[in-house]
Amino acid sequence: MIIDCHGHYTTEPKDLHRFRKDQTEAVKNKTPLPPRAGLKMSDDEIRSSIEGAQLKLQRERGTDLTIFSPRASGMGHHIGDFAVSQEWTEVCNDLVHRVCNLFPKNFIGVCQLPQTQGESPTSSIKELERCVKELGMVGCNLNPDPSGGYFNAPPLTDKWWYPFYEKMIELDVPAMIHVSGCCNPAQHTTGSYYLNADTMAVMQLILSDVFKDFPKLKLIIPHGGGAVPYHWGRFRGIALDNKRPELAEIMGNNIFFDTCVYHQPGIDLLTKVVPVDNILFASEMVGAVKGIDPNTGNNFDDTKRYVDGSALSAADKQKIFEGNAYKVYPRLKAQIEKQAHHGHSHA
Amino acid sequence: MIIDCHGHYTTEPKDLHRFRKDQTEAVKNKTPLPPRAGLKMSDDEIRSSIEGAQLKLQRERGTDLTIFSPRASGMGHHIGDFAVSQEWTEVCNDLVHRVCNLFPKNFIGVCQLPQTQGESPTSSIKELERCVKELGMVGCNLNPDPSGGYFNAPPLTDKWWYPFYEKMIELDVPAMIHVSGCCNPAQHTTGSYYLNADTMAVMQLILSDVFKDFPKLKLIIPHGGGAVPYHWGRFRGIALDNKRPELAEIMGNNIFFDTCVYHQPGIDLLTKVVPVDNILFASEMVGAVKGIDPNTGNNFDDTKRYVDGSALSAADKQKIFEGNAYKVYPRLKAQIEKQAHHGHSHA
Repeated sequence: MIIDCHGHYTTEPKDLHRFRKDQTEAVKNKTPLPPRAGLKMSDDEIRSSIEGAQLKLQRERGTDLTIFSPRASGMGHHIGDFAVSQEWTEVCNDLVHRVCNLFPKNFIGVCQLPQTQGESPTSSIKELERCVKELGMVGCNLNPDPSGGYFNAPPLTDKWWYPFYEKMIELDVPAMIHVSGCCNPAQHTTGSYYLNADTMAVMQLILSDVFKDFPKLKLIIPHGGGAVPYHWGRFRGIALDNKRPELAEIMGNNIFFDTCVYHQPGIDLLTKVVPVDNILFASEMVGAVKGIDPNTGNNFDDTKRYVDGSALSAADKQKIFEGNAYKVYPRLKAQIEKQAHHGHSHA
Repeated sequence: MIIDCHGHYTTEPKDLHRFRKDQTEAVKNKTPLPPRAGLKMSDDEIRSSIEGAQLKLQRERGTDLTIFSPRASGMGHHIGDFAVSQEWTEVCNDLVHRVCNLFPKNFIGVCQLPQTQGESPTSSIKELERCVKELGMVGCNLNPDPSGGYFNAPPLTDKWWYPFYEKMIELDVPAMIHVSGCCNPAQHTTGSYYLNADTMAVMQLILSDVFKDFPKLKLIIPHGGGAVPYHWGRFRGIALDNKRPELAEIMGNNIFFDTCVYHQPGIDLLTKVVPVDNILFASEMVGAVKGIDPNTGNNFDDTKRYVDGSALSAADKQKIFEGNAYKVYPRLKAQIEKQAHHGHSHA
């Protein structure tokens, strides 16, 4: 079984975009918000949006299951107040749940959170609980920068986040640290902003005691860990200069990087320097890079090819493709079984 | 000749720190600024600060010349108004000039700029001109984020920067894109902030026409190009998706990455994916990482070992160590000769 731990629903039905646009306009103009009951997204529409894209690519590339969450750039935590974020988040999570119901063997859900600039993360606990307990989701995407590009939230190691971490541990779910669309013209959403948030997050964690406070906290840093593997010596050196342990020890059973790195030399570097137990297979398709690499004839984001092509042993590749995922997402195995045997049902 | 294109004067005389502290306090308290005439930094003090550090390391590591600028994290463009930034900048540049006078064969100057949050870059033209024409400096460090960590300045591709670029081209000097100390608690100055600024800058340049407008503009992206080489496929893919050319073509004779990457696999990746003509040798010593790698027994920032250890041909290594530097810093060769034959003199 090959598990892709990083997929977003980026081929959503058109009416979802209409609804969000109406919602955003209403926020801007201080007019009434669009009614959620007005949303028109049929099962057929959802089915065909998946069959022609993520499901087709799973089959073509030989992957089996995608851990699936709402479009990351669409979370838009900088838009509107908590009530707006809450409603939008429920709509997006419910939609991902419908995808998992329609394709129970191919998709397991992960939720977005109703974060809002300046709002305490405790406000996101209720939706996390709903998604895990009622929708069978196995993790969440936690945004370290709800401002959308100005990095002005407290570091992930600040006690600001602690009540949310407590709930994650109680529910036994990890978080992928993932920002949303960038409204700062200096940063490009998928080009620089995503990677910068990843690098920022790892550096915050390196110098902190957050995993002493929460030994069971599990955080996934997407996009191959941002800049960290390439600058492994720099981060190791800074850690050691600061009397911290080796990075491999700091990562331990707490920090995991995915394989969303879109060329062979990048994956070779990642798998060379980062402990294999801390790497999760992922492609982020259909996502940041949709094109075909003219040098290889394959999609840039067909990361399975790069992992296959790496120098790792078969046993190590199995960890990356499947084994590590069960460790990082403790609820995953049971949810796979539940969806496989009974179709998808409420947890 | 081995030229290290990225060194900062990080072992400055104590009284420089006293002066800056007084200046910063005065800004905060709105009291009179400390008199510049009160600065006490003797030639002997400067000499010993260099002999025991950068010069010693040049000799130990077998490098010959450092392109030398004021401490990057000390530029502090978010502190005070333009007048404060101007005075501090002049003090720092004059000090680097004294180092170059005392060790004319070992150091060639590059200047910091009196940038200030919200202030047009045209205000930095006068100091650039003074440093190049009067102090014999061959380049400048341009800060893409004078806010010190919030990335709220216009992108480097915005016309906001164009008058400054015009002056750079008139004077025939490149800029290293380098932020200063971070006052944003979410980002760590040398761990995440520096790299994030590098990645942000490259992404801005990839999608822009700034090099059509300024075919002779030369920008050095330090710290190995941030996250870009590791995510070369991602950036290539985004460029191609946006109907831009291949990254190698975009970099052309305009964008250069240095070798401040502190482990062998990182340098191997850099030299594998980035055209050799676009790589400049650099160590950033004495800088971000001062320790010794327990795995190798060598300093993390002894990057010459990694370039030596790479699979590149001798001819390619020579380009990185020396040849490319003359192309990127057109005034370098003449300045080296001037300083070697006559001691350092005013240009």
